[in-house]
Amino acid sequence: MSELRQDLTTHDWVIIAKERAKRPHELTKNRLTEGPRPEHLEDCPFCPGNEGLTPEAAVVYDGPGKWRLRVIPNKFPALTPEGDTKRLEHGLFRRSDGYGRHEVIIETPLHNQFIPFMEDGHVEDLVKVYRDRYHALREDPNIKLIIIFKNHGVGAGTSLEHPHSQIVATPVVPPYIRRKYEVATRHFDDTGRCLHHDIQRAELEEKVRIVAKTPHFVVLHPYASHYPFETSIMPKKHRSSFGNISDDEVADVARVLKETLLKLHLSLKNPDYNFIIHTAPVDDEHKSYYLWHIQIIPRLTQAAGFELGSGIYINVAIPEETAEFMRSFKGE
Amino acid sequence: MSELRQDLTTHDWVIIAKERAKRPHELTKNRLTEGPRPEHLEDCPFCPGNEGLTPEAAVVYDGPGKWRLRVIPNKFPALTPEGDTKRLEHGLFRRSDGYGRHEVIIETPLHNQFIPFMEDGHVEDLVKVYRDRYHALREDPNIKLIIIFKNHGVGAGTSLEHPHSQIVATPVVPPYIRRKYEVATRHFDDTGRCLHHDIQRAELEEKVRIVAKTPHFVVLHPYASHYPFETSIMPKKHRSSFGNISDDEVADVARVLKETLLKLHLSLKNPDYNFIIHTAPVDDEHKSYYLWHIQIIPRLTQAAGFELGSGIYINVAIPEETAEFMRSFKGE
Repeated sequence: MSELRQDLTTHDWVIIAKERAKRPHELTKNRLTEGPRPEHLEDCPFCPGNEGLTPEAAVVYDGPGKWRLRVIPNKFPALTPEGDTKRLEHGLFRRSDGYGRHEVIIETPLHNQFIPFMEDGHVEDLVKVYRDRYHALREDPNIKLIIIFKNHGVGAGTSLEHPHSQIVATPVVPPYIRRKYEVATRHFDDTGRCLHHDIQRAELEEKVRIVAKTPHFVVLHPYASHYPFETSIMPKKHRSSFGNISDDEVADVARVLKETLLKLHLSLKNPDYNFIIHTAPVDDEHKSYYLWHIQIIPRLTQAAGFELGSGIYINVAIPEETAEFMRSFKGE
Repeated sequence: MSELRQDLTTHDWVIIAKERAKRPHELTKNRLTEGPRPEHLEDCPFCPGNEGLTPEAAVVYDGPGKWRLRVIPNKFPALTPEGDTKRLEHGLFRRSDGYGRHEVIIETPLHNQFIPFMEDGHVEDLVKVYRDRYHALREDPNIKLIIIFKNHGVGAGTSLEHPHSQIVATPVVPPYIRRKYEVATRHFDDTGRCLHHDIQRAELEEKVRIVAKTPHFVVLHPYASHYPFETSIMPKKHRSSFGNISDDEVADVARVLKETLLKLHLSLKNPDYNFIIHTAPVDDEHKSYYLWHIQIIPRLTQAAGFELGSGIYINVAIPEETAEFMRSFKGE
């Protein structure tokens, strides 16, 4: 079982991932090589035929003849539904069991099919699976926050290349999230408006960082982007929680996510990236002061000593320029 | 001139680095190749003979016959002493000029000499240069925080391989630092003691994460390490600011920094790493509630979507095990 430990200097939590722990000597540099990928790989645990190599599926979504999407518990989970959420203190130190959930969503049976090249309907099903799993995991009253994310490429932290997303459900609301809510709550208390919608409105007025608009979403490169080509996909309609997304929005966000990732793939030559579905803590799903959204972070630069030491990010791209570049990008 | 922009959702500052900005199409993947390095490289701007390729030196430290260390303004600075620190607001958005300093310390004339292989006296001089530059930069009343750091290897954000460290002096105290001080101040108000010394004492009592002790320093892998082999070099004597380090401590910390980096170099096979000298904001140099220290972060794993989305780090190594590994490591 993993352990959650609190950093006493910041109150941040760290997961000491005993289930996936490496021995010290195993941590020497090891970069996966890159190259063309086949549609099927004999020893890939996520390819069809190798289902026995993974933990038993939580859900399997069938397509004609075979599965289309599979949800499985992570074989090397950061958190597991074992132990409890009681804090344990020894002297100054504070920790708790690594309680929680960690699931993998195998996005497609095809080893080499990235989201930008899937059929629209398949991406829509993927977003529906995200929503389904959100609802399944939130049933556990110990779960306080659900993070849905994707790591694409070694530079984005992927260890398996078969296309997959992940969900981690944590028993704590970490300070990083709590602070964002404090800022947004203060804004709501002062103005009576959602901070994130106010930002969206201001971005729409200034126009220069807007990449695209769809019936339900706005795509933009935020004013204070921390990373080059950082992209935000924000819903127009107020919902704090991704869990409450409507079917219309699911179809629309699937299309715009696919298109945005396709443009990034073509213009930046298949960059490593993460995307994260930001959503309110489970207990705050219906509060008025937050707006769920998707953040895409291409991993084009490395956070270095300055960023790690100060929390100030140096962005070597100008959001107005990258937004203009994406607006006018017309394929290869 | 760069720009500081505030992220309204967190109040974090971001530097939009116009001086070093890349055009959008320049941001496609570009990894430096690695291999054996020569002692001198004809086109390296930091090698002797190429001094004309860098901005004019702020200070040159002479050795017998030629320079031993050179301090230059960064040619592509994140911050420059231009403009002012006034906040400018347009609508909801807030920014200021990218006022500050950004210097490079060329650690040695030798293109391939890492700190672990320098003579003790040379590392001591390097630490003295850090202290000298700290004092020089703090003279500017607009400077609020001084971060001294080193990026070693591409995975740690280096773009030039000739051994060098950097100093960035910022006109803001960013929320990340402010929060650490709030936590430490609260602890001091409650207990009358420095939080960081209390942590050091608790670590010394539990023993298992201690790697080494010297006359003036303790080396340990923190209880809630965010990264595998994250290492803290903490002074035994209370000083909030690195600027106030004594000559005895300079000599001692130089030795222990060199030894610690040598052990990491040999045991992890020359890993990419950052080190950061954490120190109190300039205005808080004499406060009782903080302890300057050096943090070393080997870059063995990548922060992925979960870390970026939640602020919770997954550490795949157990600090007690890595500390034991380092304690008992005896060379190749």
